[in-house]
Amino acid sequence: MGLERLFDPRSIAVVGASRNPRKAGNIVLRNLLEGSRARIYPVNPKAEEILGLRAYPDLASVPERVDLVISVVPAAPSVEVVRQAGELGIPFAVVLAGGFRETGPEGARLEEELRRIAKRTGIRIVGPNCVGIYVPRTGLNTIFIPREKAGYPPGGRIAFVTQSGAMGVLLMDRASREGWGFSAFVNLGNRVDITEVEVLEYLAGDEETRSIALYLESMADVASLRDLAPRIVGEKPLLLLKGGRTSAGNRAAASHTGAMATNVGIARGFSRQMGIHWVEDEMEMLLGAQVLASQRPLEGDRIGIVTSAGGAGVVASDLLEAAGFSVPELSAETQERLREVLVPFASPRNPVDMTAEATDEQYDRVIGILQESGDVDGLLVFALPQTAFITEALEGVIKRWHEEGPKPTVFVTIGGDYSASMKRRLRAAGVPVLDDIASGVAALRLLRERYAFLSKVKRSRAYSGAK
Amino acid sequence: MGLERLFDPRSIAVVGASRNPRKAGNIVLRNLLEGSRARIYPVNPKAEEILGLRAYPDLASVPERVDLVISVVPAAPSVEVVRQAGELGIPFAVVLAGGFRETGPEGARLEEELRRIAKRTGIRIVGPNCVGIYVPRTGLNTIFIPREKAGYPPGGRIAFVTQSGAMGVLLMDRASREGWGFSAFVNLGNRVDITEVEVLEYLAGDEETRSIALYLESMADVASLRDLAPRIVGEKPLLLLKGGRTSAGNRAAASHTGAMATNVGIARGFSRQMGIHWVEDEMEMLLGAQVLASQRPLEGDRIGIVTSAGGAGVVASDLLEAAGFSVPELSAETQERLREVLVPFASPRNPVDMTAEATDEQYDRVIGILQESGDVDGLLVFALPQTAFITEALEGVIKRWHEEGPKPTVFVTIGGDYSASMKRRLRAAGVPVLDDIASGVAALRLLRERYAFLSKVKRSRAYSGAK
Repeated sequence: MGLERLFDPRSIAVVGASRNPRKAGNIVLRNLLEGSRARIYPVNPKAEEILGLRAYPDLASVPERVDLVISVVPAAPSVEVVRQAGELGIPFAVVLAGGFRETGPEGARLEEELRRIAKRTGIRIVGPNCVGIYVPRTGLNTIFIPREKAGYPPGGRIAFVTQSGAMGVLLMDRASREGWGFSAFVNLGNRVDITEVEVLEYLAGDEETRSIALYLESMADVASLRDLAPRIVGEKPLLLLKGGRTSAGNRAAASHTGAMATNVGIARGFSRQMGIHWVEDEMEMLLGAQVLASQRPLEGDRIGIVTSAGGAGVVASDLLEAAGFSVPELSAETQERLREVLVPFASPRNPVDMTAEATDEQYDRVIGILQESGDVDGLLVFALPQTAFITEALEGVIKRWHEEGPKPTVFVTIGGDYSASMKRRLRAAGVPVLDDIASGVAALRLLRERYAFLSKVKRSRAYSGAK
Repeated sequence: MGLERLFDPRSIAVVGASRNPRKAGNIVLRNLLEGSRARIYPVNPKAEEILGLRAYPDLASVPERVDLVISVVPAAPSVEVVRQAGELGIPFAVVLAGGFRETGPEGARLEEELRRIAKRTGIRIVGPNCVGIYVPRTGLNTIFIPREKAGYPPGGRIAFVTQSGAMGVLLMDRASREGWGFSAFVNLGNRVDITEVEVLEYLAGDEETRSIALYLESMADVASLRDLAPRIVGEKPLLLLKGGRTSAGNRAAASHTGAMATNVGIARGFSRQMGIHWVEDEMEMLLGAQVLASQRPLEGDRIGIVTSAGGAGVVASDLLEAAGFSVPELSAETQERLREVLVPFASPRNPVDMTAEATDEQYDRVIGILQESGDVDGLLVFALPQTAFITEALEGVIKRWHEEGPKPTVFVTIGGDYSASMKRRLRAAGVPVLDDIASGVAALRLLRERYAFLSKVKRSRAYSGAK
């Protein structure tokens, strides 16, 4: 059986549901009630009703065999909950409690017990020591942080799989503020049973997911990942942030998740060979996942820059060239066509600087001319709404070129509240507008890398076919 | 005469003031009326009253000799305005109009005329082709972007001097959203008269200013800057983002501000030699300026990490070590002291991981123990308010350790709206809390560089004294 019912359960029991609004067993229930389309059953032997739902004394008295049990009780009782669930034939459990392997021998014993229960009864376990799963589309949310303190991102196209729960919650919170949409979030925790391999396998087939961001401190099963990665990467981009790349990072990871030291050179080489984007920090991972989820691969190094702020074009040229791109002179014909659109003191060279006189229509026509020219392989467009003649119509221009432009176009909007609201709307519509110049350049770098990975996949398929 | 009255004029005439709310001559007047403590005189031969102020037909009829004329009329009329102002003995003019050297020979002729007027009459000119000056403290604001479209940052400690106006406005807009405070903003434009050298000289003596961020595509006067830099750098940090560092960037700069190509190696070498922080992009410049404005220099490479999110500690360890820092093991004594504060399954090693059980008091005591230990030279603290036991009291802990901790402490808060509001309050109080792990590491790198620069200044002073 696949993981479909784990991500989209028809019914859920929350064991350890609580009437106390500060307790995890209450927060999880509230988060589910706000979004989930599943039938929800609170389990608590001391309550008759919680948040308006009838409560049940134990799993056995819940009137249906639920698809998923969320255990919000501590470590030792959680083992009993999972045992009972397994014996009842419940297919999935998420164990939130810490207090397992990460705390010493007694915890390790409990964890071993969980593993034995999974093997014996066939129940599949996420965790323990995790925040679990959040799926905007189905409203599943096992996370015990109240919405006042951390936001949950809107639905979208990127899946985020993380070994570290706290890192996951922090980045989802950030994503919710920025308007970056998620198809799914999974925190693996101690991986007593379900590992990244099965989750990736599921996500590979999930239509909502267009790119996958992975934060791992150790790999549960390198051999399986090696088999699986080419298949995923042929369909959707996969980005890896590997925690524990240096000796200090490794020591930190060891005390965090008990991860084994991995040689960073080997890990990076493995990633590149598998077509997995190797990223250096959490922002590159999240931004890159947004960009790769919705952009065409970049088939060449020549970038055309469109701006209404000269300085942004200058700095972008510097950063692009330092990253191995070229910002080529445009042909005489292209410059001629641009001159017809621009005001006299604007620059039809590359960067094309429309100056503060820029209009929505100029943005549209300048992008069109560069898209049609044979002079560049991709575009970096500074979409800057602060100047006098830019209106909300600019959003339509951006959206259309993002969707229809044959050459990949990365949009950057530097600014404050006014541009942030434009950005949020565009991001909600699937256009991953970026916030600063370096992020725009990093996005183009990943799109170029994506092209290289896809070419390699194609070549190796052609080679396999020829054999 | 210095530039004091330019930054804090007692009276201002706005030539080209307009009743049309979409025109620059109206927006500038509105922006001044909202903040300035100067007496304001609109000048417009066709109006009797604008925005409730009596309007005057020309500069000569304004009832006092103002300290500053802001010319909002086009290029050729601006030359006449400045001529008249100079003849009236007005000390300062800001010329906003474009249409000068950057547009060709006719514009260059007009610019030459401005230069001659400055020499002949003694009037000092900012611009032309600029957005001019914004000083939160005195409310001076010559910028013609309405507040609906771009925000103006609050008062603070960093001064931002830029050759590019658009880049300046964009970054101020960003700063206003983030809560990064400015002491002054100056856009130099074509630098017909006043250059970065004089502005830097003024800012060196400005008590409000604690760090200076410079965006330049060309240097107006390298010799003067060489003389001036050590004096500034001994007092306050100076950061330079040089636009036009690559051949593409240089070409872009040439068509933007007509800047001469500068060899990047020479520019970078010059910066380092002068003790100027060389930054790679606009965000490093702004964030760095915030950090350097308020933090002690970092006198060593050993960093202690405090976190409640294990993954953040792991990634930070990796990035710190890759940047040449060390994340050392803590002494047995320090670990013992930490154990008394932490919950049993937290980690007293470095990174110190308090886990999601972290409390405000734990943050306080853990930071205190690391500050007192001889084990580290500086701290990177992940201040994460999302978990259950953290309250608003964490802000007080952060503020106190920022101000009183003998070892520099950089705070990073990853998150969404809830943490953004905490960040805004802390930034308003002068604590430059950062948004992501890489920014925290970049901040420590700049603080270490600052220590190196200051040591060099001291050594060279001691050497001069010995001669």
